[in-house]
Amino acid sequence: MAKPSVLVLNGPNLNLLGRREPAVYGHQTLADIDGLCREEGEALGLDVACAQSNYEGRLIELIHEAMGRHHGLVMNPGAYTHTSLAIMDAIRVVDLPLVEVHLSNVHAREAFRHKSFVSPVAMGVICGLGAQGYRFALQALAQHFAKGSSADGIGE
Amino acid sequence: MAKPSVLVLNGPNLNLLGRREPAVYGHQTLADIDGLCREEGEALGLDVACAQSNYEGRLIELIHEAMGRHHGLVMNPGAYTHTSLAIMDAIRVVDLPLVEVHLSNVHAREAFRHKSFVSPVAMGVICGLGAQGYRFALQALAQHFAKGSSADGIGE
Amino acid sequence: MAKPSVLVLNGPNLNLLGRREPAVYGHQTLADIDGLCREEGEALGLDVACAQSNYEGRLIELIHEAMGRHHGLVMNPGAYTHTSLAIMDAIRVVDLPLVEVHLSNVHAREAFRHKSFVSPVAMGVICGLGAQGYRFALQALAQHFAKGSSADGIGE
Amino acid sequence: MAKPSVLVLNGPNLNLLGRREPAVYGHQTLADIDGLCREEGEALGLDVACAQSNYEGRLIELIHEAMGRHHGLVMNPGAYTHTSLAIMDAIRVVDLPLVEVHLSNVHAREAFRHKSFVSPVAMGVICGLGAQGYRFALQALAQHFAKGSSADGIGE
Amino acid sequence: MAKPSVLVLNGPNLNLLGRREPAVYGHQTLADIDGLCREEGEALGLDVACAQSNYEGRLIELIHEAMGRHHGLVMNPGAYTHTSLAIMDAIRVVDLPLVEVHLSNVHAREAFRHKSFVSPVAMGVICGLGAQGYRFALQALAQHFAKGSSADGIGE
Amino acid sequence: MAKPSVLVLNGPNLNLLGRREPAVYGHQTLADIDGLCREEGEALGLDVACAQSNYEGRLIELIHEAMGRHHGLVMNPGAYTHTSLAIMDAIRVVDLPLVEVHLSNVHAREAFRHKSFVSPVAMGVICGLGAQGYRFALQALAQHFAKGSSADGIGE
Amino acid sequence: MAKPSVLVLNGPNLNLLGRREPAVYGHQTLADIDGLCREEGEALGLDVACAQSNYEGRLIELIHEAMGRHHGLVMNPGAYTHTSLAIMDAIRVVDLPLVEVHLSNVHAREAFRHKSFVSPVAMGVICGLGAQGYRFALQALAQHFAKGSSADGIGE
Amino acid sequence: MAKPSVLVLNGPNLNLLGRREPAVYGHQTLADIDGLCREEGEALGLDVACAQSNYEGRLIELIHEAMGRHHGLVMNPGAYTHTSLAIMDAIRVVDLPLVEVHLSNVHAREAFRHKSFVSPVAMGVICGLGAQGYRFALQALAQHFAKGSSADGIGE
Amino acid sequence: MAKPSVLVLNGPNLNLLGRREPAVYGHQTLADIDGLCREEGEALGLDVACAQSNYEGRLIELIHEAMGRHHGLVMNPGAYTHTSLAIMDAIRVVDLPLVEVHLSNVHAREAFRHKSFVSPVAMGVICGLGAQGYRFALQALAQHFAKGSSADGIGE
Amino acid sequence: MAKPSVLVLNGPNLNLLGRREPAVYGHQTLADIDGLCREEGEALGLDVACAQSNYEGRLIELIHEAMGRHHGLVMNPGAYTHTSLAIMDAIRVVDLPLVEVHLSNVHAREAFRHKSFVSPVAMGVICGLGAQGYRFALQALAQHFAKGSSADGIGE
Amino acid sequence: MAKPSVLVLNGPNLNLLGRREPAVYGHQTLADIDGLCREEGEALGLDVACAQSNYEGRLIELIHEAMGRHHGLVMNPGAYTHTSLAIMDAIRVVDLPLVEVHLSNVHAREAFRHKSFVSPVAMGVICGLGAQGYRFALQALAQHFAKGSSADGIGE
Amino acid sequence: MAKPSVLVLNGPNLNLLGRREPAVYGHQTLADIDGLCREEGEALGLDVACAQSNYEGRLIELIHEAMGRHHGLVMNPGAYTHTSLAIMDAIRVVDLPLVEVHLSNVHAREAFRHKSFVSPVAMGVICGLGAQGYRFALQALAQHFAKGSSADGIGE
Repeated sequence: MAKPSVLVLNGPNLNLLGRREPAVYGHQTLADIDGLCREEGEALGLDVACAQSNYEGRLIELIHEAMGRHHGLVMNPGAYTHTSLAIMDAIRVVDLPLVEVHLSNVHAREAFRHKSFVSPVAMGVICGLGAQGYRFALQALAQHFAKGSSADGIGE
Repeated sequence: MAKPSVLVLNGPNLNLLGRREPAVYGHQTLADIDGLCREEGEALGLDVACAQSNYEGRLIELIHEAMGRHHGLVMNPGAYTHTSLAIMDAIRVVDLPLVEVHLSNVHAREAFRHKSFVSPVAMGVICGLGAQGYRFALQALAQHFAKGSSADGIGE
Repeated sequence: MAKPSVLVLNGPNLNLLGRREPAVYGHQTLADIDGLCREEGEALGLDVACAQSNYEGRLIELIHEAMGRHHGLVMNPGAYTHTSLAIMDAIRVVDLPLVEVHLSNVHAREAFRHKSFVSPVAMGVICGLGAQGYRFALQALAQHFAKGSSADGIGE
Repeated sequence: MAKPSVLVLNGPNLNLLGRREPAVYGHQTLADIDGLCREEGEALGLDVACAQSNYEGRLIELIHEAMGRHHGLVMNPGAYTHTSLAIMDAIRVVDLPLVEVHLSNVHAREAFRHKSFVSPVAMGVICGLGAQGYRFALQALAQHFAKGSSADGIGE
Repeated sequence: MAKPSVLVLNGPNLNLLGRREPAVYGHQTLADIDGLCREEGEALGLDVACAQSNYEGRLIELIHEAMGRHHGLVMNPGAYTHTSLAIMDAIRVVDLPLVEVHLSNVHAREAFRHKSFVSPVAMGVICGLGAQGYRFALQALAQHFAKGSSADGIGE
Repeated sequence: MAKPSVLVLNGPNLNLLGRREPAVYGHQTLADIDGLCREEGEALGLDVACAQSNYEGRLIELIHEAMGRHHGLVMNPGAYTHTSLAIMDAIRVVDLPLVEVHLSNVHAREAFRHKSFVSPVAMGVICGLGAQGYRFALQALAQHFAKGSSADGIGE
Repeated sequence: MAKPSVLVLNGPNLNLLGRREPAVYGHQTLADIDGLCREEGEALGLDVACAQSNYEGRLIELIHEAMGRHHGLVMNPGAYTHTSLAIMDAIRVVDLPLVEVHLSNVHAREAFRHKSFVSPVAMGVICGLGAQGYRFALQALAQHFAKGSSADGIGE
Repeated sequence: MAKPSVLVLNGPNLNLLGRREPAVYGHQTLADIDGLCREEGEALGLDVACAQSNYEGRLIELIHEAMGRHHGLVMNPGAYTHTSLAIMDAIRVVDLPLVEVHLSNVHAREAFRHKSFVSPVAMGVICGLGAQGYRFALQALAQHFAKGSSADGIGE
Repeated sequence: MAKPSVLVLNGPNLNLLGRREPAVYGHQTLADIDGLCREEGEALGLDVACAQSNYEGRLIELIHEAMGRHHGLVMNPGAYTHTSLAIMDAIRVVDLPLVEVHLSNVHAREAFRHKSFVSPVAMGVICGLGAQGYRFALQALAQHFAKGSSADGIGE
Repeated sequence: MAKPSVLVLNGPNLNLLGRREPAVYGHQTLADIDGLCREEGEALGLDVACAQSNYEGRLIELIHEAMGRHHGLVMNPGAYTHTSLAIMDAIRVVDLPLVEVHLSNVHAREAFRHKSFVSPVAMGVICGLGAQGYRFALQALAQHFAKGSSADGIGE
Repeated sequence: MAKPSVLVLNGPNLNLLGRREPAVYGHQTLADIDGLCREEGEALGLDVACAQSNYEGRLIELIHEAMGRHHGLVMNPGAYTHTSLAIMDAIRVVDLPLVEVHLSNVHAREAFRHKSFVSPVAMGVICGLGAQGYRFALQALAQHFAKGSSADGIGE
Repeated sequence: MAKPSVLVLNGPNLNLLGRREPAVYGHQTLADIDGLCREEGEALGLDVACAQSNYEGRLIELIHEAMGRHHGLVMNPGAYTHTSLAIMDAIRVVDLPLVEVHLSNVHAREAFRHKSFVSPVAMGVICGLGAQGYRFALQALAQHFAKGSSADGIGE
C-alpha cells in the first residue's frame, strides 16, 4: 500500500478555538491543532489533510469525498456528535475507519453530551485529553493500517 | 518532583484476556498488557505498577492505597464501569488524575455499557483502541505531570 | 389546470446510492431513480423535477422554492426524517401535498429511525419498497391532483 | 412458478368501511376494496383472495393457512397493528413477504398509532394513500415475485 | 322517537361473577346484573338487551351490530379496557353514546388498570359502585336521550 | 343509626359554574347543583350539607371537620384532583366513604387530568355525567349506609 | 383426593411447531409435546388434558372451564404472555396453581418479551428448556398436589 | 465424554436459608439443597460441586474457575441477578451452559426483581419452584450434554 | 371602550423581593415593581391594579374577581407556575388575555422550572428581563386592546 | 462606549413570513420586521443589523461573526430552537447578551416546541407577542448596555 | 448571641395526630409534640415556637415571618413535602438552617412520598423516628448554632 | 433483657474520613466516629461494636453475623445505599431494627444519591447531620429497645 492518507475533520464552533480569552482557554487555535496533526502524520508516515465546517451538510460531503482519497478519518464532530444521524449514516456508508475525538471530557459535562451518534460507527473514541487526543487518534489509525485494530470484543 | 508513579488498574473478568479461544480473541493476555504498560512507562520516565481484581471492594482499596504512593491512575473498570458508584466515590476522594480505558468500543455494544460512572470523575476516556489505549493513557498522564492537562472546556 | 408539476427531493447521503460495492447494494444510482421518476411522470402526465441535498438548509429552501412552481412533492428526507423540525415546518408552511418515501423499511431498523417528523405533515408514507416507492408516490400525487386523496380517516 | 397467489387480509372494524355517513367518509366499502384488489391482481397476473376478521385469533389462523396456499400477503391489521405481538409472530413463522397497508396516515393521528408491531416483519409499509395503497402493495409483491425486493438497506 | 334501546355489554371474565366462593365475593351473578338492568330499563322506559363475551373480536362485532338496533351502550370492557385499541375504534365508528362501568374501583388497584382506552370515547365513566353502577349508567343514557348530556366541559 | 349526613364538597373554580356565557356552558350554577343535592338527599333520607373552596387548605379542613359530623362525602376536587397529595391524606385520615365526581369526562381531556390522587382513596368515581353524577353519588352513599358497598374486587 | 388432573394449555402460533423447515427448527410438533405431557402425566399419576388456541377469548374460556375439572394448569401463553391482562385475570379468578412454560428463553429475545402478565399469578416459571419444560412443570404440580409448593419467599 | 461435571453456584444471602424462623420459612438449609443436588447428580450421572458466596467478586472467580473443570453451571445469583453486569460478563466469557434458578417466583415480587442480567446469557430460567428448581436445572443440563438443548427459537 | 384595566398579579414569595441582602439581590421591592407598573399604565392609558398572594386559592379568586373588572392580566405566578393546574383552569375560565412574566430566566435554572402550566393559556411569556418584563407585558396588552395580538401562528 | 450594535438573527422558514395567504396570516413580512427593528434601534440609540438563514451552519457563523462587531443579539432561531446544540454552543462561545424571541407562543403548541436549547444561554426569552417581541428584546438589550440586566435570580 | 430561637412548623393533616383511634395510632397529639419540643428547647437553651397550618400559603408566610424572629426551623411539611415548589423557594429565600422531620419512614411508603422538594434546601433530614425526630432536629440546630454543621460533603 | 448490643456498620470509602485535606473536610476520622458511638452507647446503656468494609459481600456477612449477637444496627452504607439489593435483602433476612445514617445530606447532591435501597427496610433515616447522626441513631435504637418505635404510620 502507498502512504496511507487520513482526513482530520472538525465540526461546528471548533474554528473559534483559542480565539477568545486565551488567558483563560489557552492559545491553541484550530490551525495549531491542524499543524500538530500534520506533524504527527509525518512522523507516522501518514498523509494528513485537515478540514473544518460549521455545516452539517458540508461535513457529510467531506466524509463522502474521503472515499477513494483517504484511508481513515479522525473526527471531532463538535455538537453534531449528539444530534446528527445524517453524519452517522455518512460514516457508515463510506465505511472507513474513524476515531472520534473530543478535546474536553464530554462525560463530565451536561447530560445531552453523553450520547454520541458517531461512537457506534467509530473504531474508537478519545475524549478529555486535549489536542493530544488527535495525535493518539492518528497513531491508532497508523497501527490499524499496519495490522488491523487490536480491540478485543470481550472483557471491555 | 521525583519520577512520577502510575497505577494501572484492571477490573472484573480482565484476568481472562487471551485465555479463551486465542484464535478468535487474540493471544494478548493481561500479563502482556501489564508488560506493555511497564515498557511504555519506562519510555516515558514513569514508574508503572499494575493490579487487577474482580472484587469491587478490592478495587476501591487499591484506589485508596494509591494515595501517597502514585501520582495518577489508568483504569479499565470492566463491567463495574456501569454500576459502581462506590468506585466513582473512591476516585473522587483520592483526587488523582485518572484516564479511563476500555479495550473495546463500549458505545458500539449494549445500551447499558454506554453509561459510565467513572467517566465524570476521569480526566479523559479512551475506548475501542485495544491495548494501545493503555499506552495513550500513560502518555496523557505523563504530559499532565509535565504541564497539566491541555483539555479545553469549550468547543467539545 | 395545466400539466401538474412534482418535485422529487432526496436528502442526505442519497447521492451515494449505488456508488459503493454494487455487488452488494445494487447498481441503482440516484441518477437512475431520478430517471425512473421522470419516466413515470411522463406516463402520468406530470412534470417531474429532481433535486438532492445533504444540507438541511438547502432542503428547506428547495421546499420553499416549490411554492408557485410545483403542485406536489415526493420526498425521501434521509436521516433528517428523524431529526429535522425545520423541514417539517417548511412543509407545513408551503402546504403542498407530499408523499414521504424511504427505500428501506425504516421500521425494521434501529429504533431512532421509527420516529419521523415528516410523516405527520405528509399525505402518505411508503417505505421498504425500493425505487418503486417513488413511482407509487408519483401515482398517488397524480390521483390526488385528479380527484383529491381517497384516504379515509376512519378504519386505519 | 405457477400464477402467484396473494391473500389480502383486513383487520378489525374494516368491515364497516363506507357503511356510515357516506357523505362524510365516502362510499367505498370493504367489498369495493376487495373488488379493486382482485381487478388489480388480474392486471398483474396474480391470484388474489380476500378476507377480513375482527378476531385476532382468526387473523392469526388466516395467516397460518396462507402457508402453502399463497405466496404473499397484503395486510391492513387495523388497530391490532399497534397491540398484537401474536400477529407479528404469526407473520414471522409463515415467513411470506407481506406489505402492510393503512388507508389513513396513522402517523398524523394519535401517538399510540405510530408504533406498529407488524412493520418490523413486513417487506414494506404504505399508509395514507387510501384504497390505492392496496394496489401499490399488490404491485410491489408482483415485482418481488418477479425479481425480488429492490429495497436497499443503506441510505434510507 | 320510539322507545329507546340500550345494549349492556360485558367483557372477559365477567361471566364468572358470583360463581366462585360466594361467601367471599358475594352471590351476585352476571344473570343477576342483567336482570337488574332489564328491570331498571323497564322503569326508565328503555329497551335493554344484554350480552357478554370473552372474545375481543366478538365484543367488536356486538358493538357493530348495535348500529341501527340500539341508541346507546353500557359497557364493562373488563380487562380489555386497558389493552384494546380495536374496541375503542369500534365505539368511535358506531358513534353511539356509551357509559363505561366497572364494578370495582379500578383506580385503587394495579397501575395498569388506571389507563382506559374506552374512557376517551365514552360519554361518562362509573367505577367502584358495584352493580348499582349499571343502573346509574342506564339512568344517564335515559336522561341523555331525553335532553342530551349535561356535562360541562369547563370546571371539571 | 340516626339520619345519615353527607357533605358535598366542591373544589377550585367550581364556584364559577354557569357564570360565564350560559348560552355555551349552560345555566346551571353551583347553587343549582347544591339545591339538586339537597333535594336528592331529602328523597334518600340523607342530611346533605354543601361547601366549596378554592383553597387546598380549606378543603383539607372541611374534610377534617366532617369527622363526627358527617357519615360520607361526595367530592369534586376540581384541578386539585390531579395534584393534591394533602387532600388524599386528609381523606385517608378521616376514613369516611367518599364518592369522587367530575362534571366532565376528564379522561377525554388533557393527559394530566387522567391521574387522580383522590380515586385510590375513594369508594367509587363518576365522571362525565354532569350534575346527575352528584345524584348518583348520593344514591351510592345511601345504599352504602344501608348495606355496605356491593363493589366486587374481582372481575373489574 | 382422586387422581389429580392437569390441563396443558398452549397459546397462539404453537399449533405450527415443527411444521416449517424441520431441518432448522426440529421435528417436534405440538402433538409430540401433548404426547410427551400425557406420558409424563401417566408416570406421575396425573390425568393430563391438552388444548391449544390462537384466540385470547378461547384461552380465557379454557381456563374458566378448568374450574371443577382440573386441579392445576401448565400454560405456554405464547405472545399473549406479554399483552393479555384478560388471561391474567382469568387465572386469578379460577385460582388454580399454574406453571408458565416457554420453549425458548424469552429473556434472550426482544425486550417486549421480557414482561409477562402471567408470571405474577403463576406458581412458577420455566423458560428456555424446550419441551422438557412441560415435563418439569407437570412434576412441579405433582409435588405441589402431594405437599404444597416448597418455594421460599426469602432468599430469591 | 467422561462423566460431565456441573457447578451449583448460590449467591448472596442464600447461606441463611432455613436459618431463621423455620416454622415460617421452612427447615430447608443451603446444605440440604446442596445435598439434594449431589443426589440428583448421582442419579443423572453428573459430578456435582456446590459453592456459595456473598461476594460478587468471588462469584465471578468461581465462574472463571469452572472453565476446564466443569461442563455446565446451575446458578441462583440471588440479588446480584438484578444488578451485576460483571457476573453476566463472566458467564459470557466462560461460555458454559448455565441454568438460572430462583427459589421464589421473582416475577410476583418487587418490580426491581423482574429484570435479570443473567437470563440473557443463560440457557434457561426456572423460578418459583423451590429446591425442586435445582433438580430440574440439573436434568436440563444432563439432557443438554446428551443431545444439546431442544429449545426452539420460534413459537415462544 | 372606556380606559382598559389590567390586574398585575404576583404569586408566592414575591412579597419578599428586595427584602434580603439588597447588596446582593438589588433594592427593588415588590412595591417598586407595583409603582413601575402603575406608572407604565399611566403612560399607556391603562388602569393598573396590583395584587400579590402566597395562597394558590387566593390567586384563583383574584383571577375570578378580574372578570368584569379588568380587561387583561399580567401574572408572575412564582413557583405555582410549575405546579398549579387550578390556576391554569381559573385563567381558562375567565378567558382574559394574560401575559406571563418571570423576573429571572427560568429556563436557565432547575429542570422543574422549565414546565409552566400557565404558558399554554397565556397570550405570551416574558422571562429573564427583570422588572422591565412587567412593562413589556403591559405594552403588549395595550397593543392587544388597540388592535388584537399580532402573533403569527406559523413560523415560530 | 460608542453606539452599541445589535444583530437581529432569524432562523429557518422565517423568510416566508407574510408570503402565504396574507388574509389569514397577516401581511407582515420579514422585511417589515427588519424595518421595525431598525426603527426601534434608531429610537434607542442602537445600531441594528439584520440577517436570516435557513442553514444551521450559517446561523452559527453569523453568531461567530458577531464577535467584535456587535454587542448583543436578538434571535428567533425558528425550529432550530428545539434541536440545535451547535447554535447553543456558538452563543456560549461568543458570550454576548442574547434575547430569544418567538412570534407565536411556542408553549401553546406541540410538546416538542416547549424545549429550547437556546433559552439556557439567553439573557431572557419573549414569546407569543408577535413582532412587538423584537422591539422589547431591543429595549432590554439597550437597558442592559446602559446598566446591566436587572433580572433577579431569586423569586422567579 | 442571645438565646437562639427555633420555629417548629407542621404541615397539612398533622393537626389530627392522635385524634383518631388512639388504640391503633397512639395517643400522641400535635399538642404533645409541641410540648415535647418546648421542653427539649428549654434543655438546649433554645426558644421554641410552634405552628401548624393546612394551607401551603400560610406555611410560606410562617417561613417568611421567621426572618428576623428565629434562627432556625424544624419542619414537617406533611404531604406538601412532595408537591410544593413554593415552600422550597420560601426556605431558600429566608436562608435559615432547617431540619426536615417526618414521623413515619416515608421511604417505606408509596413511591410519590420518596421525592422531597424540601430536602435539597434542608440542612438535614430525619424520618421514621416518631416524635423523637423533632428532638433530634432541635439538638442538631443547637449544635449548629454552637459551632456550625459538622456534615462532611465527602463520604456520604 | 441483658444490656442490648448495637453494631455500627460503615460502608465503602468511609475509612478515608478525615484522611485528606483536614483543613477542608475536617479532622474527624472514622476512628473518631467509632469512639463517639461507643461513648454514646455507654451513656445509653448499650454495647456498641463498630465495623467498616469496602466490600459489599463483607457488609452482607457482617449483617448476617449480627443475628444472635446484636439487637440493632446503625448503618451508613455509603455508595452501596444506592446500588445494593443484596444488602437490602440481608437486612430483611436478619430482621433487626436498623437506622440508616448519612453524614452529608444526600438529597442535596446528585440525583442518583436520592434513591436508597436500604431506607425501605430501615426503621428510620437520618442524613446531613454529620457524626451527630450516629448518636441520634443510637438514641433511637435505645428508645426502641425500651418501648418500641413511636413512629406513626399516619400523618407523615
